[in-house]
Amino acid sequence: MDSFFNPDGVAIVGATPNPRKGGYHILNNTINGYKTGKIYPINPKYDSMLGLPCYPDIDSIPDDFELAIYFISARFLPDTIRECSRKNVKGIIIESAGFAEVGEDGRRLQNECLKLAREYNIRLWGPNCMGLLDGYRRHVFSFIRSTAWKSLMVPGNVSMIVQSGMLSSGLLMMVLERGGIGINKICSIGNKCDVHETDLLEYLINDDLTDVIGLYVESFADARRFMQLARSTHKPIVVLKGGRSPEGAQAAISHTASIAGNHAIINSAFKQAGIIQVFDINELMDFLRGFSKIKDSRNDGGTAIITFSGGGGIVTADFLNDYGLPLAHFSDETLKSIKSIFPQWMDPTNPLDLWPAIELNGVEKVYETAIDALAKDDNVDSIILHLFANWIPSSSLKTACALKDQQKKPVIAWLVGMGSAFHTFRNEVEDMGIPIFDEIGRCAGFLSAVKKHFYNIR
Amino acid sequence: MDSFFNPDGVAIVGATPNPRKGGYHILNNTINGYKTGKIYPINPKYDSMLGLPCYPDIDSIPDDFELAIYFISARFLPDTIRECSRKNVKGIIIESAGFAEVGEDGRRLQNECLKLAREYNIRLWGPNCMGLLDGYRRHVFSFIRSTAWKSLMVPGNVSMIVQSGMLSSGLLMMVLERGGIGINKICSIGNKCDVHETDLLEYLINDDLTDVIGLYVESFADARRFMQLARSTHKPIVVLKGGRSPEGAQAAISHTASIAGNHAIINSAFKQAGIIQVFDINELMDFLRGFSKIKDSRNDGGTAIITFSGGGGIVTADFLNDYGLPLAHFSDETLKSIKSIFPQWMDPTNPLDLWPAIELNGVEKVYETAIDALAKDDNVDSIILHLFANWIPSSSLKTACALKDQQKKPVIAWLVGMGSAFHTFRNEVEDMGIPIFDEIGRCAGFLSAVKKHFYNIR
Repeated sequence: MDSFFNPDGVAIVGATPNPRKGGYHILNNTINGYKTGKIYPINPKYDSMLGLPCYPDIDSIPDDFELAIYFISARFLPDTIRECSRKNVKGIIIESAGFAEVGEDGRRLQNECLKLAREYNIRLWGPNCMGLLDGYRRHVFSFIRSTAWKSLMVPGNVSMIVQSGMLSSGLLMMVLERGGIGINKICSIGNKCDVHETDLLEYLINDDLTDVIGLYVESFADARRFMQLARSTHKPIVVLKGGRSPEGAQAAISHTASIAGNHAIINSAFKQAGIIQVFDINELMDFLRGFSKIKDSRNDGGTAIITFSGGGGIVTADFLNDYGLPLAHFSDETLKSIKSIFPQWMDPTNPLDLWPAIELNGVEKVYETAIDALAKDDNVDSIILHLFANWIPSSSLKTACALKDQQKKPVIAWLVGMGSAFHTFRNEVEDMGIPIFDEIGRCAGFLSAVKKHFYNIR
Repeated sequence: MDSFFNPDGVAIVGATPNPRKGGYHILNNTINGYKTGKIYPINPKYDSMLGLPCYPDIDSIPDDFELAIYFISARFLPDTIRECSRKNVKGIIIESAGFAEVGEDGRRLQNECLKLAREYNIRLWGPNCMGLLDGYRRHVFSFIRSTAWKSLMVPGNVSMIVQSGMLSSGLLMMVLERGGIGINKICSIGNKCDVHETDLLEYLINDDLTDVIGLYVESFADARRFMQLARSTHKPIVVLKGGRSPEGAQAAISHTASIAGNHAIINSAFKQAGIIQVFDINELMDFLRGFSKIKDSRNDGGTAIITFSGGGGIVTADFLNDYGLPLAHFSDETLKSIKSIFPQWMDPTNPLDLWPAIELNGVEKVYETAIDALAKDDNVDSIILHLFANWIPSSSLKTACALKDQQKKPVIAWLVGMGSAFHTFRNEVEDMGIPIFDEIGRCAGFLSAVKKHFYNIR
């Protein structure tokens, strides 16, 4: 599998200097990131391309090499596999479409290629996929039509296996632009005729640089082994399963030739395997960002809600109740120290509405005093924090950050704010390890997943 | 009630030139927007304030006036009511806290004031609230600490009644900054000792400038009349009810002295009255934005999903199934005209994945052809559209817009994209009357609400 992520030599079958075509972008992205081996563009119409010598076919390449990226018509793949075998190629990423997803003829071709590849001991990745991105190595073996990844793809601890091109291209870039998430390996697997999500799950579980694994899949190639692997690891595995409904399952057949399976059975297998299930695309991204920051959690008390809005606190309490998460009963000591910043007429309760105290004592003192008291309170095992970007200095949240790691109390924030202050503040707070979500319900849902996950693995 | 929204003369009890205090902001906001009558700052320490003569007390004001805004200590309110009666004041907006929400003493004071006001035929608004904003008249009778409303508050057809200050200040400004929603009247009602959500609902139902009504409430002052009013109108009424859970209900008592009531009963009353229930704060704002654009809907076919991502289409189909919304079966004519832009190997299905066609024929032609075909298809009663801001010109969506109004087919979009193009495109598309949401699940949830609402009122 290493030959896909870190190959010694890459040939690009279907490279072109025409920037309107995918073959150009594969070559350009590879040149921009891949520095540890040679790159061989292949196209009979050109002698050179983007400053590299171009070859008419694989046989003309003077060296052996490990990886080929294939982006020409499906029907030439069998020949390419044969040529690759003569160069001791270990893997081919097939990004072209026109295989099993187009019907019987395509399926026959795909099976034929697979048989051939197995004879020559070549692994196939795809077909009908976007290839892979590697945040640390800067390898982008994909026709993604933007070099935005050069600045946006911050290396990090999140890896993904996706059975949809969009999740490894446009949407991924949008998520990276938002920030707060570092990328390790993104694997777009398409029809997954050979390398599939279960192979890659095993690879990522054993990958020291990956802490959190996210998947969008439409079917499972080896469901039993997938669930076993999931059970065997402490790494959070967040799965969005497409094709839960009859209509969605039908669509999965023409998308990636996937048989979606019975969702009720999958549901219960997920639960037994400790897999964290999500249902929406941004929810998947939110949970991955969240788990990249929250490394541990207690589950021996209740949640404290800190808010500047009575209404926001109440809505949060309602959602926590929906998820069966208890509110913390503050200790006498906590109540006493918070009372010191509250107006005479108001007693601290949970949700802790700080607004009247802020009017009296200012936002910094009040937030710091409240967070500090809750940090020390053994009845509090987690905090949902409401923040207002335009008036709370992020430095006031130092205690909250310390909480998370030293005391294993997850801190999750909901943020209101305007203008560039909103974005700056969000970045600062997420850099401190406090994930921020746009919806209160998402904060509660994520906290529920966090508590379940760290409770399950104990 | 008109005296609150459009008073002849406003006195501000507790006005101050100190910009760190709420009394300054009430005065400043009033000066900035209220041009149809005189403004009387009241504060015994000053002779003039922000260019206006300042009065030591209400009795010193030479004229009668209709509205007083009260922002000094709770205990002076009875005297103020008496003074107001001598100036023929019709309403007092009480923005100070320290009434029923602080316990028995406060409740007694609140009741005493209410009794007094009724004797003098003065309506009380609040206490413990943020007052009101009027997008058309530019009246901001609120201590909201930002003049951002001057540019952000675009007049429109959405009105809100909120029992939480945040929803009429920081969060509201954030929502307005995002754009796509025009504001008519925002009413922050706090402890609502006299003017309550049911009074205001009636007022807004009869208000020609209001098409959509949103509420955040923690209790109902006159639930029976509220439900009757909701049933009587065709205007969509979207309600977020705080205090659904025992913990949330407890918190509502100290927030606005509200008794939240039994949620199961409220739930079923909402259904019978055709009220659209939401659970999260941004969900409330999303639904209001959506209903401000979607004025009618059919419910005699199925939904078409148009996407550039197989995975996104499948997730959408799964969510539509969750909400019990059928997918449209495309007519033969539709299939034929879409087939003309599709590659040979691919047959059009629903969800309609346009990606392979886009690679062949370019994004504009493909989107336009597909939308045009679905516009004419009687089997299609609604469309969920996936858009990518960075490559679809918004002009390609003209047919989609015409659909919405002429054919009563709601079109709802999910948008992926980056940079300033994302924001520009979102504004352009929403200006055309197509609401855009960040989550696929929200698109489906909103479409379900739309179909139910327009079906109910027929």
